[in-house]
Amino acid sequence: MRAARYYGKEDVRIDEIDEPQVRPGTVKIAPAYNGICGSDLHLYHDGPIPPAPTESEPHPLSGETLPVVFGHEFAGVVEEVGEGVDGLQPGDHVAVEPLMVDGTCPACKAGKYNLCERMGFIGISGHGGGLSEHIVVDKRWVHPVGDMPLDQAALIEPLAVTVHAVRHAGIGSDSGGGVAVVGGAGPIGLLTAAVLRAYGMRTIVSEIAEVRRAKAQETGVADVTVDPSTESLTDIVREQSDGLMAAVAFDAAGVGVVLDQLFDALAPGGRLEVIALHAKPYELDITDRLTMHDRVLGSAIGYANAHDEAIRLVREGLIDLAPFITSRIRVDDIIEQGYQKLLRDRSEVKILVSMS
Amino acid sequence: MRAARYYGKEDVRIDEIDEPQVRPGTVKIAPAYNGICGSDLHLYHDGPIPPAPTESEPHPLSGETLPVVFGHEFAGVVEEVGEGVDGLQPGDHVAVEPLMVDGTCPACKAGKYNLCERMGFIGISGHGGGLSEHIVVDKRWVHPVGDMPLDQAALIEPLAVTVHAVRHAGIGSDSGGGVAVVGGAGPIGLLTAAVLRAYGMRTIVSEIAEVRRAKAQETGVADVTVDPSTESLTDIVREQSDGLMAAVAFDAAGVGVVLDQLFDALAPGGRLEVIALHAKPYELDITDRLTMHDRVLGSAIGYANAHDEAIRLVREGLIDLAPFITSRIRVDDIIEQGYQKLLRDRSEVKILVSMS
Repeated sequence: MRAARYYGKEDVRIDEIDEPQVRPGTVKIAPAYNGICGSDLHLYHDGPIPPAPTESEPHPLSGETLPVVFGHEFAGVVEEVGEGVDGLQPGDHVAVEPLMVDGTCPACKAGKYNLCERMGFIGISGHGGGLSEHIVVDKRWVHPVGDMPLDQAALIEPLAVTVHAVRHAGIGSDSGGGVAVVGGAGPIGLLTAAVLRAYGMRTIVSEIAEVRRAKAQETGVADVTVDPSTESLTDIVREQSDGLMAAVAFDAAGVGVVLDQLFDALAPGGRLEVIALHAKPYELDITDRLTMHDRVLGSAIGYANAHDEAIRLVREGLIDLAPFITSRIRVDDIIEQGYQKLLRDRSEVKILVSMS
Repeated sequence: MRAARYYGKEDVRIDEIDEPQVRPGTVKIAPAYNGICGSDLHLYHDGPIPPAPTESEPHPLSGETLPVVFGHEFAGVVEEVGEGVDGLQPGDHVAVEPLMVDGTCPACKAGKYNLCERMGFIGISGHGGGLSEHIVVDKRWVHPVGDMPLDQAALIEPLAVTVHAVRHAGIGSDSGGGVAVVGGAGPIGLLTAAVLRAYGMRTIVSEIAEVRRAKAQETGVADVTVDPSTESLTDIVREQSDGLMAAVAFDAAGVGVVLDQLFDALAPGGRLEVIALHAKPYELDITDRLTMHDRVLGSAIGYANAHDEAIRLVREGLIDLAPFITSRIRVDDIIEQGYQKLLRDRSEVKILVSMS
C-alpha cells in the first residue's frame, strides 16, 4: 500500500509498504482525511525530536526507528475488526486518538495517560499513521463518530486538545457563562474559542494578524475580536463584561507579552490557562499577578478521555467544524501545498490531506 | 480606656482613649488575646504601607489617619449587643474577622470580599483594634466560637488565612488524601500543614531552620520533616508517596528556590499554591513546570467566608491550636517581648498579647 513516511528534516517520501493485518483487539481502518498539525510542521522543518524516534534511537514503546508513517490527526472508515472487538463494524466512521502509552507509570495508573512517562503518538512514534491507505489500531483508541462527515472527524483530535485544556481550566457546560479571552487565533486558539462558546461563554479573541481575526469572525467562534497592537484589550474586556473582567483567559500564542495582556484583562479569582508551548521562561510577578487577586495559572498538554466529549459537541451541533477546513490536498502535494504553504499563509487554519 | 496605638515606624504607644459605644447592628467586645502577625512586624519595623493610613492620607473606608488602634488577630468576650443583633449575647466567646470592605466593587459583588478594591483591616486601617480594653465591631465580622478557650480563639484569624489558601488550592475534607508538601515552617506554614492534615493529607514540611522543623514536629502538623539544605525533598516525597509525588505543595517561604524544590516534588496534575508574598519575580519555565505535567500554580490572599470553617476544625478536635502559642505577654511589654523578640527568636510561633 502507499504511505507517506517521515525520514527526518525536510524528508517525507511516498513509499510502497506492506499492508498491516488486523490482530485480536484491533481495528483496521482506511484513513479518509489527515489534518496537518503544528508538530508535523516542526518535525518536517526542524528534524526529529521526541516523541519521534531517530534513525538509531527507537521510540521506547513502539520500538521503531525512522522512517515512520506520518500523520496523527485522522479519521476514516472501519474495514475489519479483530477478534474480541465489540461495538464497531466495517463501514463505521471513526476518529482515532493517536496514542501509545505505557499503562504502568504513576500518571497512567492515575488515569492521566496524557502524562505517561513514555508516551508516544501513532503517526509520529510508530505504529503506522494516518497518511496511509490502511492502518491497524488498538480498539481503545478508536472512537465512533456516528454520521459525522469524515473531513470534520479528522479535526476531532485537535478539538480534543482544546477540550482537555478547557476542562483543565475548570470550565464545563455548567460554568454559568461569563467572559473568556483567547490570545492568539491559530488553529488551537480558534478551537479553544469554539469549545468555550459551546460551554456558554462570551468569547473575545485577541490576535495581531488581521487575516486570523477575520477567521475568528468567519468561523463564528469570536463574539468580539481585538487587535492588541492598536486597541486596549483590558478596556474592551471591561466593557464587554460589565466591569467584571474575564473569568478565564487562554494563551494560545506562547509569548510573554500575550500573558501580560491576558493577566491585565483577568477578573479577581480568574484563571489563566496556557495552551501553547513557551520557548522562553516567563518572568512572573507572583504577588501582583496571582496572590493579590486569588488567581490561578495552569497549563495542560494533550488529552485524556476527551475525544468522546469533542465528538458530542460536534454531533449535538454545539460546534461546527466545517469552517475550520481551509484547504484539501492530495498526499502527493503534501510538501508544497501542505508543509510549505502553512509556513507562509496565515489564512490557512486546517489543511486536510487525503491519500487519493 | 487603654489602647496600644500605631503611630508609624518603631512607634507604638499605650494611650488613654475614649471607650467606643455600641450602635445598632454592632457588638461591643472586650478583647482577651491578640496575636502578633507578620504584617504587624512589618508595620512596626518598616513604617506604614497600605492598608495602613499615614498621618495625612486617611484610609478610604475608615476615613482615619494615624494613629490607629493596633491589633487584628484577636478574640474576646461579648459585653453588649446593639439593636437588631440576634444570636449573640453578653458573655459569649467570639473571634473577630477584622475587615472593612466596600461592598459595591466587582469583587465584593462576586462574594470575593477579600479582593475588595478598598479593603481595610480593623486594627490596621482604623475602626479600633484588638489591643484595647473594648472594641465595637459590625455584627457581620463577629464569629461565636462556643466553648473554645479565648487564647486559641485568637488564632482563628491566621487559621482562616490558611483555610482560604487550602480551599483555593482545591483541597477539602473530601479530597481523598495523598501527600502534601509545605515549604517553610513559620506560623502560616505550620497552620497550613495543620489544615492539610485535618483534611486527611499526609504532610511533609520542608524547612531549613532546625528550630522550626522541631516546631513542625511538636505541634503535630508534620508527618515528616525535611531539611532541604542537606536532604533531597524530591527523593523523600517519592518515597513517602509510593512514587506518586505530591498532589499539592504550598510555598510558605516566598522565595524562588523553594518554588523550584516544590515543583520538583510535585505529581503530574499537581497544584502548587503560594501562600507567602514574593518580593521578586519568579522566572517560570511554563512548558517544563506546568504544561508537560498538566499542573497549576495558584495563590490567594486573606479570607472570605473561611472563619466558620476554621472554627469548626478546632471545635471538632481536628486541629489543636494550643501548641502554636509559644509566649504570652502584657501589652506594656509588646515592643521588647513582642516586635523585637519575633525578629530574633525563630522558635517563637505565636506570641499572644493581653491588655492586663
